[in-house]
Amino acid sequence: MMILKIGGGAAMNLAGVAADVAALSEPIVIVHGANALRDDLAVALGRETRVVTSASGYTSVHSDDAAIDLLMMAYAGLRNKRLVELLQQHDVNAIGLSGLDGRLVRGRRNRGIRVNEGGKLMVLHDLSGKPEAVNVELLTMLLDQGYVPVVTVPICDESGTAINSENDDVVAVMQRALRASRVIELIEAPGLLRDPGDPSSLIARLAPHEIGEWEARASGRMKRKLHALRALLGSSSPRVVIADGRGAHPLADALAGGGTLIAAEGAQEDAKWTA
Amino acid sequence: MMILKIGGGAAMNLAGVAADVAALSEPIVIVHGANALRDDLAVALGRETRVVTSASGYTSVHSDDAAIDLLMMAYAGLRNKRLVELLQQHDVNAIGLSGLDGRLVRGRRNRGIRVNEGGKLMVLHDLSGKPEAVNVELLTMLLDQGYVPVVTVPICDESGTAINSENDDVVAVMQRALRASRVIELIEAPGLLRDPGDPSSLIARLAPHEIGEWEARASGRMKRKLHALRALLGSSSPRVVIADGRGAHPLADALAGGGTLIAAEGAQEDAKWTA
Repeated sequence: MMILKIGGGAAMNLAGVAADVAALSEPIVIVHGANALRDDLAVALGRETRVVTSASGYTSVHSDDAAIDLLMMAYAGLRNKRLVELLQQHDVNAIGLSGLDGRLVRGRRNRGIRVNEGGKLMVLHDLSGKPEAVNVELLTMLLDQGYVPVVTVPICDESGTAINSENDDVVAVMQRALRASRVIELIEAPGLLRDPGDPSSLIARLAPHEIGEWEARASGRMKRKLHALRALLGSSSPRVVIADGRGAHPLADALAGGGTLIAAEGAQEDAKWTA
Repeated sequence: MMILKIGGGAAMNLAGVAADVAALSEPIVIVHGANALRDDLAVALGRETRVVTSASGYTSVHSDDAAIDLLMMAYAGLRNKRLVELLQQHDVNAIGLSGLDGRLVRGRRNRGIRVNEGGKLMVLHDLSGKPEAVNVELLTMLLDQGYVPVVTVPICDESGTAINSENDDVVAVMQRALRASRVIELIEAPGLLRDPGDPSSLIARLAPHEIGEWEARASGRMKRKLHALRALLGSSSPRVVIADGRGAHPLADALAGGGTLIAAEGAQEDAKWTA
Protein backbone atom coordinates (compact mmCIF):
# COMPACT_ATOMS: atom_id res chain seq x y z
CA MET A 1 0.00 0.00 0.00
CA MET A 2 0.90 3.62 -0.44
CA ILE A 3 0.58 6.83 1.53
CA LEU A 4 0.12 10.00 -0.51
CA LYS A 5 0.71 13.36 1.11
CA ILE A 6 -0.66 16.33 -0.84
CA GLY A 7 0.74 19.69 0.23
CA GLY A 8 -1.54 22.60 0.94
CA GLY A 9 -0.30 24.94 -1.77
CA ALA A 10 -2.67 26.78 -4.07
CA ALA A 11 -1.15 25.42 -7.28
CA MET A 12 -1.64 21.72 -6.55
CA ASN A 13 -3.43 19.96 -9.41
CA LEU A 14 -5.99 18.07 -7.37
CA ALA A 15 -7.99 16.96 -10.42
CA GLY A 16 -4.83 15.45 -11.91
CA VAL A 17 -4.08 13.66 -8.64
CA ALA A 18 -7.65 12.31 -8.51
CA ALA A 19 -7.32 10.91 -12.04
CA ASP A 20 -4.00 9.29 -11.11
CA VAL A 21 -5.46 7.72 -7.94
CA ALA A 22 -8.29 6.28 -10.03
CA ALA A 23 -5.72 4.48 -12.20
CA LEU A 24 -3.95 2.83 -9.23
CA SER A 25 -4.43 -0.79 -8.41
CA GLU A 26 -3.12 -0.75 -4.84
CA PRO A 27 -4.65 0.55 -1.61
CA ILE A 28 -3.85 4.16 -0.78
CA VAL A 29 -4.32 6.53 2.14
CA ILE A 30 -4.22 10.24 1.37
CA VAL A 31 -3.16 12.95 3.83
CA HIS A 32 -3.53 16.54 2.70
CA GLY A 33 -2.87 20.08 3.78
CA ALA A 34 -4.67 23.32 2.97
CA ASN A 35 -2.43 26.11 4.19
CA ALA A 36 -2.96 28.39 1.17
CA LEU A 37 -6.72 28.06 1.52
CA ARG A 38 -6.52 28.62 5.28
CA ASP A 39 -4.42 31.75 4.80
CA ASP A 40 -6.82 33.11 2.15
CA LEU A 41 -9.79 32.44 4.40
CA ALA A 42 -8.05 34.10 7.34
CA VAL A 43 -7.48 37.22 5.24
CA ALA A 44 -11.04 37.21 3.89
CA LEU A 45 -12.39 36.95 7.45
CA GLY A 46 -9.94 39.54 8.73
CA ARG A 47 -8.24 37.03 11.01
CA GLU A 48 -4.50 37.01 10.66
CA THR A 49 -2.67 33.72 11.02
CA ARG A 50 -0.12 34.12 13.79
CA VAL A 51 3.13 32.36 12.98
CA VAL A 52 5.58 31.84 15.82
CA THR A 53 9.20 30.78 15.64
CA SER A 54 10.42 28.57 18.43
CA ALA A 55 13.65 29.32 20.22
CA SER A 56 15.18 26.38 18.37
CA GLY A 57 14.27 27.84 14.99
CA TYR A 58 11.16 25.98 13.86
CA THR A 59 8.17 28.00 12.67
CA SER A 60 4.59 27.03 13.38
CA VAL A 61 1.10 28.52 13.40
CA HIS A 62 -0.19 29.67 16.80
CA SER A 63 -3.45 27.80 17.28
CA ASP A 64 -6.13 29.47 19.38
CA ASP A 65 -9.85 28.64 19.17
CA ALA A 66 -10.30 30.89 16.14
CA ALA A 67 -7.38 29.16 14.40
CA ILE A 68 -9.01 25.76 15.01
CA ASP A 69 -12.24 27.15 13.52
CA LEU A 70 -10.26 28.12 10.42
CA LEU A 71 -8.64 24.69 10.30
CA MET A 72 -12.04 22.99 10.46
CA MET A 73 -13.38 25.20 7.68
CA ALA A 74 -10.38 25.14 5.33
CA TYR A 75 -8.77 21.73 5.93
CA ALA A 76 -11.53 19.40 7.19
CA GLY A 77 -14.23 21.36 5.35
CA LEU A 78 -13.55 22.92 1.98
CA ARG A 79 -10.28 21.27 0.92
CA ASN A 80 -11.15 17.82 2.22
CA LYS A 81 -14.61 17.71 0.70
CA ARG A 82 -13.52 19.17 -2.66
CA LEU A 83 -10.82 16.51 -2.85
CA VAL A 84 -13.31 13.77 -1.91
CA GLU A 85 -15.67 15.15 -4.57
CA LEU A 86 -12.94 15.03 -7.26
CA LEU A 87 -12.15 11.44 -6.30
CA GLN A 88 -15.83 10.47 -6.33
CA GLN A 89 -16.15 12.05 -9.78
CA HIS A 90 -13.34 9.68 -10.84
CA ASP A 91 -15.20 6.70 -9.32
CA VAL A 92 -12.83 6.46 -6.34
CA ASN A 93 -14.88 5.84 -3.19
CA ALA A 94 -13.08 8.36 -1.02
CA ILE A 95 -14.01 9.04 2.58
CA GLY A 96 -12.79 12.27 4.14
CA LEU A 97 -11.82 12.23 7.79
CA SER A 98 -10.15 14.60 10.21
CA GLY A 99 -8.04 13.20 13.01
CA LEU A 100 -10.99 13.78 15.35
CA ASP A 101 -13.28 11.42 13.44
CA GLY A 102 -13.25 8.03 15.08
CA ARG A 103 -10.17 9.30 16.96
CA LEU A 104 -8.33 8.55 13.76
CA VAL A 105 -5.21 10.49 14.72
CA ARG A 106 -4.54 10.92 18.41
CA GLY A 107 -1.89 13.24 19.74
CA ARG A 108 -0.47 14.86 22.80
CA ARG A 109 -1.05 18.54 23.42
CA ASN A 110 2.12 20.60 23.37
CA ARG A 111 3.14 21.64 26.86
CA GLY A 112 4.01 25.02 25.42
CA ILE A 113 6.40 26.28 22.77
CA ARG A 114 9.48 28.16 23.94
CA VAL A 115 9.59 31.37 21.97
CA ASN A 116 11.88 34.32 21.95
CA GLU A 117 9.71 37.45 22.23
CA GLY A 118 11.60 40.72 22.23
CA GLY A 119 14.71 39.06 23.59
CA LYS A 120 12.83 37.21 26.37
CA LEU A 121 12.29 33.44 26.47
CA MET A 122 8.60 32.71 27.05
CA VAL A 123 6.42 29.61 27.02
CA LEU A 124 3.45 29.95 24.67
CA HIS A 125 0.48 27.59 25.14
CA ASP A 126 -1.92 26.81 22.31
CA LEU A 127 -4.13 24.17 20.73
CA SER A 128 -1.41 22.26 18.96
CA GLY A 129 0.44 19.04 19.48
CA LYS A 130 2.19 16.02 18.12
CA PRO A 131 0.38 13.03 16.64
CA GLU A 132 1.24 9.82 18.47
CA ALA A 133 -1.04 7.09 17.18
CA VAL A 134 -3.58 6.35 14.48
CA ASN A 135 -6.71 4.23 14.66
CA VAL A 136 -5.35 1.37 12.57
CA GLU A 137 -8.52 -0.72 13.01
CA LEU A 138 -10.66 2.00 11.44
CA LEU A 139 -8.22 2.60 8.57
CA THR A 140 -7.85 -1.11 7.89
CA MET A 141 -11.60 -1.65 7.97
CA LEU A 142 -12.12 1.13 5.43
CA LEU A 143 -9.25 -0.01 3.18
CA ASP A 144 -10.52 -3.60 3.28
CA GLN A 145 -13.90 -2.39 2.03
CA GLY A 146 -12.29 -0.51 -0.85
CA TYR A 147 -12.57 3.00 0.51
CA VAL A 148 -9.80 5.56 0.09
CA PRO A 149 -9.33 7.47 3.38
CA VAL A 150 -8.58 11.16 2.85
CA VAL A 151 -7.17 12.50 6.10
CA THR A 152 -6.37 15.95 7.42
CA VAL A 153 -6.10 18.04 10.59
CA PRO A 154 -7.28 18.79 13.21
CA ILE A 155 -6.25 15.78 15.24
CA CYS A 156 -7.58 14.67 18.63
CA ASP A 157 -5.73 15.30 21.91
CA GLU A 158 -5.84 13.14 25.07
CA SER A 159 -9.19 14.65 26.13
CA GLY A 160 -10.87 14.58 22.73
CA THR A 161 -10.12 18.23 22.00
CA ALA A 162 -9.25 19.38 18.48
CA ILE A 163 -5.64 20.41 18.07
CA ASN A 164 -3.52 21.50 15.16
CA SER A 165 -0.58 19.43 14.04
CA GLU A 166 1.82 19.25 11.14
CA ASN A 167 0.48 16.99 8.42
CA ASP A 168 4.03 15.80 7.81
CA ASP A 169 4.05 14.45 11.37
CA VAL A 170 0.68 12.80 10.74
CA VAL A 171 2.21 11.06 7.72
CA ALA A 172 5.13 9.82 9.83
CA VAL A 173 2.83 8.35 12.51
CA MET A 174 0.62 6.81 9.85
CA GLN A 175 3.62 5.21 8.18
CA ARG A 176 4.75 3.78 11.53
CA ALA A 177 1.32 2.17 11.92
CA LEU A 178 0.61 1.06 8.35
CA ARG A 179 4.16 0.31 7.13
CA ALA A 180 3.37 1.38 3.59
CA SER A 181 5.97 0.32 1.04
CA ARG A 182 6.08 3.81 -0.41
CA VAL A 183 5.25 7.34 0.57
CA ILE A 184 4.74 10.04 -2.07
CA GLU A 185 4.78 13.68 -1.06
CA LEU A 186 3.54 16.25 -3.55
CA ILE A 187 4.83 19.78 -3.10
CA GLU A 188 5.01 22.98 -5.15
CA ALA A 189 8.52 22.36 -6.44
CA PRO A 190 10.15 19.72 -8.67
CA GLY A 191 11.38 17.93 -5.53
CA LEU A 192 14.12 18.67 -3.02
CA LEU A 193 16.38 21.35 -4.48
CA ARG A 194 20.08 22.00 -3.85
CA ASP A 195 19.28 25.70 -4.21
CA PRO A 196 15.70 26.59 -3.20
CA GLY A 197 15.74 29.45 -5.71
CA ASP A 198 16.76 27.25 -8.65
CA PRO A 199 14.15 24.72 -9.87
CA SER A 200 16.80 23.04 -12.02
CA SER A 201 18.85 22.07 -8.97
CA LEU A 202 16.73 18.98 -8.27
CA ILE A 203 18.30 16.32 -6.10
CA ALA A 204 17.27 13.17 -7.92
CA ARG A 205 18.31 10.77 -5.19
CA LEU A 206 19.15 11.04 -1.54
CA ALA A 207 20.16 8.43 1.02
CA PRO A 208 18.24 8.53 4.33
CA HIS A 209 21.43 9.26 6.27
CA GLU A 210 21.92 12.45 4.24
CA ILE A 211 18.67 14.06 5.46
CA GLY A 212 20.22 15.26 8.71
CA GLU A 213 22.82 17.49 7.07
CA TRP A 214 20.21 19.01 4.73
CA GLU A 215 17.97 19.69 7.73
CA ALA A 216 20.80 21.53 9.51
CA ARG A 217 21.20 23.90 6.57
CA ALA A 218 17.47 24.47 5.83
CA SER A 219 15.09 27.00 7.39
CA GLY A 220 11.36 27.60 7.78
CA ARG A 221 8.88 25.05 6.48
CA MET A 222 11.55 23.08 4.61
CA LYS A 223 13.45 22.56 7.87
CA ARG A 224 10.27 21.19 9.39
CA LYS A 225 9.61 18.94 6.39
CA LEU A 226 13.12 17.47 6.57
CA HIS A 227 12.72 16.95 10.31
CA ALA A 228 9.48 15.02 9.67
CA LEU A 229 11.20 13.08 6.87
CA ARG A 230 13.76 11.78 9.34
CA ALA A 231 10.94 10.50 11.55
CA LEU A 232 9.26 8.98 8.51
CA LEU A 233 12.39 7.14 7.46
CA GLY A 234 13.38 6.11 10.95
CA SER A 235 10.69 3.61 11.80
CA SER A 236 10.55 1.47 8.68
CA SER A 237 12.16 1.79 5.29
CA PRO A 238 9.62 3.06 2.85
CA ARG A 239 10.72 4.46 -0.46
CA VAL A 240 9.90 8.14 -0.27
CA VAL A 241 9.41 10.36 -3.30
CA ILE A 242 9.06 14.11 -3.02
CA ALA A 243 7.69 15.38 -6.29
CA ASP A 244 5.88 18.17 -8.05
CA GLY A 245 2.14 18.44 -7.42
CA ARG A 246 1.55 21.01 -10.14
CA GLY A 247 1.85 18.93 -13.32
CA ALA A 248 -0.87 17.27 -15.38
CA HIS A 249 -0.34 13.89 -13.68
CA PRO A 250 1.49 14.54 -10.40
CA LEU A 251 1.17 11.06 -8.89
CA ALA A 252 1.80 9.15 -12.11
CA ASP A 253 4.90 11.28 -12.76
CA ALA A 254 6.19 10.68 -9.23
CA LEU A 255 5.70 6.93 -9.65
CA ALA A 256 7.51 7.04 -13.00
CA GLY A 257 10.70 8.40 -11.48
CA GLY A 258 10.04 12.13 -11.12
CA GLY A 259 11.14 14.23 -8.17
CA THR A 260 13.53 13.25 -5.39
CA LEU A 261 13.76 9.59 -4.43
CA ILE A 262 14.88 8.95 -0.87
CA ALA A 263 15.95 5.36 -0.39
CA ALA A 264 18.87 3.52 1.13
CA GLU A 265 21.77 3.15 -1.30
CA GLY A 266 21.78 -0.58 -0.78
CA ALA A 267 18.15 -0.78 -1.85
CA GLN A 268 17.29 -2.51 -5.08
CA GLU A 269 18.04 -0.22 -7.98
CA ASP A 270 14.78 0.11 -9.83
CA ALA A 271 14.68 3.61 -11.20
CA LYS A 272 11.06 3.30 -12.21
CA TRP A 273 10.12 1.13 -9.18
CA THR A 274 6.77 0.33 -10.66
CA ALA A 275 6.41 -2.57 -8.22
CA MET B 1 -31.72 2.45 17.19
CA MET B 2 -32.39 6.14 16.98
CA ILE B 3 -31.89 8.95 14.48
CA LEU B 4 -31.23 12.39 15.95
CA LYS B 5 -31.63 15.45 13.77
CA ILE B 6 -30.08 18.63 15.18
CA GLY B 7 -31.29 21.82 13.54
CA GLY B 8 -28.83 24.42 12.33
CA GLY B 9 -29.92 27.28 14.58
CA ALA B 10 -27.42 29.35 16.54
CA ALA B 11 -29.02 28.66 19.93
CA MET B 12 -28.73 24.85 19.86
CA ASN B 13 -27.06 23.52 22.99
CA LEU B 14 -24.62 21.14 21.33
CA ALA B 15 -22.68 20.46 24.53
CA GLY B 16 -25.91 19.43 26.24
CA VAL B 17 -26.78 17.15 23.34
CA ALA B 18 -23.30 15.58 23.46
CA ALA B 19 -23.70 14.85 27.19
CA ASP B 20 -27.12 13.29 26.53
CA VAL B 21 -25.78 11.12 23.69
CA ALA B 22 -23.01 9.88 26.02
CA ALA B 23 -25.68 8.67 28.45
CA LEU B 24 -27.55 6.64 25.80
CA SER B 25 -27.28 2.88 25.61
CA GLU B 26 -28.60 2.39 22.09
CA PRO B 27 -27.02 3.02 18.67
CA ILE B 28 -27.61 6.45 17.24
CA VAL B 29 -27.02 8.26 13.96
CA ILE B 30 -26.89 12.05 14.07
CA VAL B 31 -27.81 14.34 11.18
CA HIS B 32 -27.21 18.04 11.67
CA GLY B 33 -27.68 21.38 9.99
CA ALA B 34 -25.66 24.59 10.22
CA ASN B 35 -27.75 27.27 8.54
CA ALA B 36 -27.06 30.00 11.11
CA LEU B 37 -23.32 29.37 10.84
CA ARG B 38 -23.50 29.29 7.03
CA ASP B 39 -25.41 32.58 6.97
CA ASP B 40 -22.92 34.23 9.36
CA LEU B 41 -20.00 33.00 7.27
CA ALA B 42 -21.66 34.23 4.07
CA VAL B 43 -22.04 37.69 5.61
CA ALA B 44 -18.46 37.70 6.94
CA LEU B 45 -17.17 36.75 3.50
CA GLY B 46 -19.44 39.22 1.76
CA ARG B 47 -21.32 36.45 -0.04
CA GLU B 48 -25.03 36.73 0.27
CA THR B 49 -27.06 33.53 0.50
CA ARG B 50 -29.61 33.60 -2.29
CA VAL B 51 -32.94 32.20 -1.19
CA VAL B 52 -35.43 31.34 -3.90
CA THR B 53 -39.12 30.54 -3.53
CA SER B 54 -40.47 27.95 -5.90
CA ALA B 55 -43.69 28.59 -7.79
CA SER B 56 -45.40 26.11 -5.46
CA GLY B 57 -44.38 28.09 -2.38
CA TYR B 58 -41.35 26.27 -0.96
CA THR B 59 -38.23 28.28 -0.15
CA SER B 60 -34.70 26.98 -0.67
CA VAL B 61 -31.14 28.23 -0.95
CA HIS B 62 -29.82 28.72 -4.48
CA SER B 63 -26.68 26.58 -4.64
CA ASP B 64 -23.93 27.71 -6.99
CA ASP B 65 -20.27 26.70 -6.62
CA ALA B 66 -19.66 29.41 -4.03
CA ALA B 67 -22.66 28.19 -2.03
CA ILE B 68 -21.25 24.65 -2.04
CA ASP B 69 -17.93 26.07 -0.78
CA LEU B 70 -19.84 27.69 2.09
CA LEU B 71 -21.66 24.44 2.79
CA MET B 72 -18.38 22.54 2.95
CA MET B 73 -16.88 25.10 5.32
CA ALA B 74 -19.87 25.62 7.60
CA TYR B 75 -21.69 22.28 7.60
CA ALA B 76 -19.09 19.59 6.80
CA GLY B 77 -16.26 21.66 8.28
CA LEU B 78 -16.83 23.83 11.32
CA ARG B 79 -20.18 22.60 12.64
CA ASN B 80 -19.53 18.92 11.94
CA LYS B 81 -16.07 18.88 13.50
CA ARG B 82 -17.05 20.97 16.54
CA LEU B 83 -19.91 18.54 17.17
CA VAL B 84 -17.60 15.54 16.74
CA GLU B 85 -15.15 17.21 19.14
CA LEU B 86 -17.87 17.74 21.78
CA LEU B 87 -18.88 14.08 21.46
CA GLN B 88 -15.25 12.92 21.68
CA GLN B 89 -14.82 15.04 24.80
CA HIS B 90 -17.76 13.07 26.23
CA ASP B 91 -16.11 9.76 25.27
CA VAL B 92 -18.48 9.15 22.38
CA ASN B 93 -16.50 7.88 19.38
CA ALA B 94 -18.16 10.07 16.81
CA ILE B 95 -17.21 10.06 13.15
CA GLY B 96 -18.25 13.04 11.05
CA LEU B 97 -19.23 12.44 7.44
CA SER B 98 -20.78 14.43 4.64
CA GLY B 99 -22.99 12.70 2.11
CA LEU B 100 -20.00 12.68 -0.27
CA ASP B 101 -17.85 10.56 2.03
CA GLY B 102 -18.10 6.94 1.01
CA ARG B 103 -21.10 8.05 -1.09
CA LEU B 104 -22.96 7.98 2.19
CA VAL B 105 -25.97 9.91 0.88
CA ARG B 106 -26.63 9.72 -2.83
CA GLY B 107 -29.14 11.94 -4.54
CA ARG B 108 -30.48 13.09 -7.84
CA ARG B 109 -29.69 16.56 -9.10
CA ASN B 110 -32.74 18.80 -9.42
CA ARG B 111 -33.72 19.27 -13.03
CA GLY B 112 -34.38 22.90 -12.17
CA ILE B 113 -36.66 24.71 -9.78
CA ARG B 114 -39.62 26.55 -11.24
CA VAL B 115 -39.52 30.03 -9.83
CA ASN B 116 -41.63 33.08 -10.33
CA GLU B 117 -39.30 35.98 -11.13
CA GLY B 118 -40.98 39.31 -11.68
CA GLY B 119 -44.21 37.65 -12.70
CA LYS B 120 -42.49 35.25 -15.14
CA LEU B 121 -42.16 31.50 -14.63
CA MET B 122 -38.51 30.45 -15.08
CA VAL B 123 -36.53 27.28 -14.53
CA LEU B 124 -33.53 27.83 -12.28
CA HIS B 125 -30.69 25.26 -12.36
CA ASP B 126 -28.31 24.82 -9.45
CA LEU B 127 -26.24 22.36 -7.41
CA SER B 128 -29.08 20.97 -5.33
CA GLY B 129 -31.10 17.84 -5.31
CA LYS B 130 -33.06 15.21 -3.45
CA PRO B 131 -31.40 12.41 -1.48
CA GLU B 132 -32.47 8.98 -2.73
CA ALA B 133 -30.34 6.39 -0.97
CA VAL B 134 -27.85 5.98 1.83
CA ASN B 135 -24.83 3.68 2.03
CA VAL B 136 -26.36 1.30 4.58
CA GLU B 137 -23.31 -1.02 4.52
CA LEU B 138 -21.01 1.81 5.62
CA LEU B 139 -23.39 3.05 8.32
CA THR B 140 -23.98 -0.46 9.64
CA MET B 141 -20.27 -1.24 9.67
CA LEU B 142 -19.57 1.92 11.69
CA LEU B 143 -22.49 1.36 14.08
CA ASP B 144 -21.45 -2.27 14.61
CA GLN B 145 -18.00 -1.07 15.66
CA GLY B 146 -19.47 1.37 18.17
CA TYR B 147 -18.99 4.58 16.20
CA VAL B 148 -21.60 7.33 16.17
CA PRO B 149 -21.97 8.66 12.61
CA VAL B 150 -22.49 12.43 12.48
CA VAL B 151 -23.86 13.26 9.05
CA THR B 152 -24.46 16.47 7.15
CA VAL B 153 -24.59 17.99 3.67
CA PRO B 154 -23.39 18.20 0.95
CA ILE B 155 -24.61 14.95 -0.55
CA CYS B 156 -23.38 13.20 -3.67
CA ASP B 157 -25.21 13.34 -7.02
CA GLU B 158 -25.24 10.67 -9.76
CA SER B 159 -21.82 11.79 -11.05
CA GLY B 160 -20.11 12.21 -7.68
CA THR B 161 -20.64 15.97 -7.59
CA ALA B 162 -21.43 17.74 -4.34
CA ILE B 163 -24.97 19.04 -4.13
CA ASN B 164 -26.99 20.75 -1.47
CA SER B 165 -30.03 19.08 -0.03
CA GLU B 166 -32.44 19.56 2.84
CA ASN B 167 -31.21 17.73 5.93
CA ASP B 168 -34.84 16.89 6.72
CA ASP B 169 -34.95 14.96 3.45
CA VAL B 170 -31.68 13.22 4.37
CA VAL B 171 -33.30 12.13 7.64
CA ALA B 172 -36.30 10.73 5.77
CA VAL B 173 -34.11 8.67 3.40
CA MET B 174 -31.97 7.48 6.28
CA GLN B 175 -35.04 6.38 8.18
CA ARG B 176 -36.30 4.48 5.15
CA ALA B 177 -32.96 2.60 5.06
CA LEU B 178 -32.31 2.10 8.77
CA ARG B 179 -35.88 1.80 10.08
CA ALA B 180 -35.01 3.40 13.39
CA SER B 181 -37.65 2.96 16.07
CA ARG B 182 -37.52 6.64 16.87
CA VAL B 183 -36.50 9.91 15.32
CA ILE B 184 -35.82 12.97 17.46
CA GLU B 185 -35.65 16.38 15.83
CA LEU B 186 -34.26 19.26 17.83
CA ILE B 187 -35.34 22.74 16.76
CA GLU B 188 -35.30 26.24 18.24
CA ALA B 189 -38.84 26.07 19.60
CA PRO B 190 -40.60 23.98 22.24
CA GLY B 191 -41.95 21.74 19.46
CA LEU B 192 -44.66 22.20 16.84
CA LEU B 193 -46.76 25.20 17.80
CA ARG B 194 -50.40 25.95 17.05
CA ASP B 195 -49.41 29.61 16.77
CA PRO B 196 -45.76 30.10 15.63
CA GLY B 197 -45.63 33.35 17.61
CA ASP B 198 -46.77 31.77 20.88
CA PRO B 199 -44.30 29.32 22.53
CA SER B 200 -47.04 28.21 24.93
CA SER B 201 -49.16 26.86 22.08
CA LEU B 202 -47.24 23.56 21.93
CA ILE B 203 -48.96 20.66 20.26
CA ALA B 204 -48.11 17.82 22.61
CA ARG B 205 -49.27 15.05 20.30
CA LEU B 206 -50.16 14.73 16.68
CA ALA B 207 -51.31 11.76 14.61
CA PRO B 208 -49.42 11.19 11.35
CA HIS B 209 -52.56 11.77 9.28
CA GLU B 210 -52.87 15.28 10.72
CA ILE B 211 -49.51 16.46 9.25
CA GLY B 212 -51.01 17.18 5.83
CA GLU B 213 -53.47 19.79 7.06
CA TRP B 214 -50.75 21.55 9.10
CA GLU B 215 -48.50 21.58 6.05
CA ALA B 216 -51.21 23.24 3.96
CA ARG B 217 -51.48 26.08 6.46
CA ALA B 218 -47.71 26.55 7.11
CA SER B 219 -45.19 28.63 5.17
CA GLY B 220 -41.43 28.93 4.67
CA ARG B 221 -39.12 26.49 6.41
CA MET B 222 -41.90 25.04 8.59
CA LYS B 223 -43.84 24.08 5.46
CA ARG B 224 -40.75 22.28 4.21
CA LYS B 225 -40.22 20.56 7.55
CA LEU B 226 -43.80 19.29 7.62
CA HIS B 227 -43.45 18.10 4.03
CA ALA B 228 -40.33 16.10 5.00
CA LEU B 229 -42.14 14.80 8.09
CA ARG B 230 -44.79 13.25 5.88
CA ALA B 231 -42.06 11.43 3.94
CA LEU B 232 -40.46 10.37 7.20
CA LEU B 233 -43.69 8.92 8.54
CA GLY B 234 -44.76 7.35 5.27
CA SER B 235 -42.21 4.60 4.91
CA SER B 236 -42.19 3.02 8.35
CA SER B 237 -43.78 4.03 11.61
CA PRO B 238 -41.12 5.57 13.81
CA ARG B 239 -42.13 7.57 16.82
CA VAL B 240 -41.09 11.10 15.98
CA VAL B 241 -40.48 13.80 18.58
CA ILE B 242 -39.89 17.41 17.64
CA ALA B 243 -38.43 19.13 20.66
CA ASP B 244 -36.45 22.09 21.93
CA GLY B 245 -32.70 22.00 21.28
CA ARG B 246 -31.94 24.99 23.49
CA GLY B 247 -32.36 23.51 26.99
CA ALA B 248 -29.74 22.07 29.33
CA HIS B 249 -30.48 18.49 28.22
CA PRO B 250 -32.27 18.65 24.89
CA LEU B 251 -32.18 14.96 23.99
CA ALA B 252 -32.90 13.68 27.51
CA ASP B 253 -35.85 16.07 27.74
CA ALA B 254 -37.18 14.94 24.36
CA LEU B 255 -36.93 11.31 25.45
CA ALA B 256 -38.71 12.12 28.72
CA GLY B 257 -41.83 13.37 26.96
CA GLY B 258 -40.94 16.95 25.98
CA GLY B 259 -41.94 18.55 22.69
CA THR B 260 -44.38 17.23 20.12
CA LEU B 261 -44.84 13.48 19.79
CA ILE B 262 -46.01 12.31 16.41
CA ALA B 263 -47.30 8.76 16.55
CA ALA B 264 -50.31 6.83 15.38
CA GLU B 265 -53.20 7.03 17.82
CA GLY B 266 -53.42 3.30 18.01
CA ALA B 267 -49.78 3.07 19.10
CA GLN B 268 -48.98 1.90 22.58
CA GLU B 269 -49.58 4.69 25.04
CA ASP B 270 -46.27 5.18 26.85
CA ALA B 271 -46.01 8.88 27.59
CA LYS B 272 -42.38 8.55 28.69
CA TRP B 273 -41.55 5.83 26.10
CA THR B 274 -38.23 5.14 27.72
CA ALA B 275 -38.06 1.82 25.84
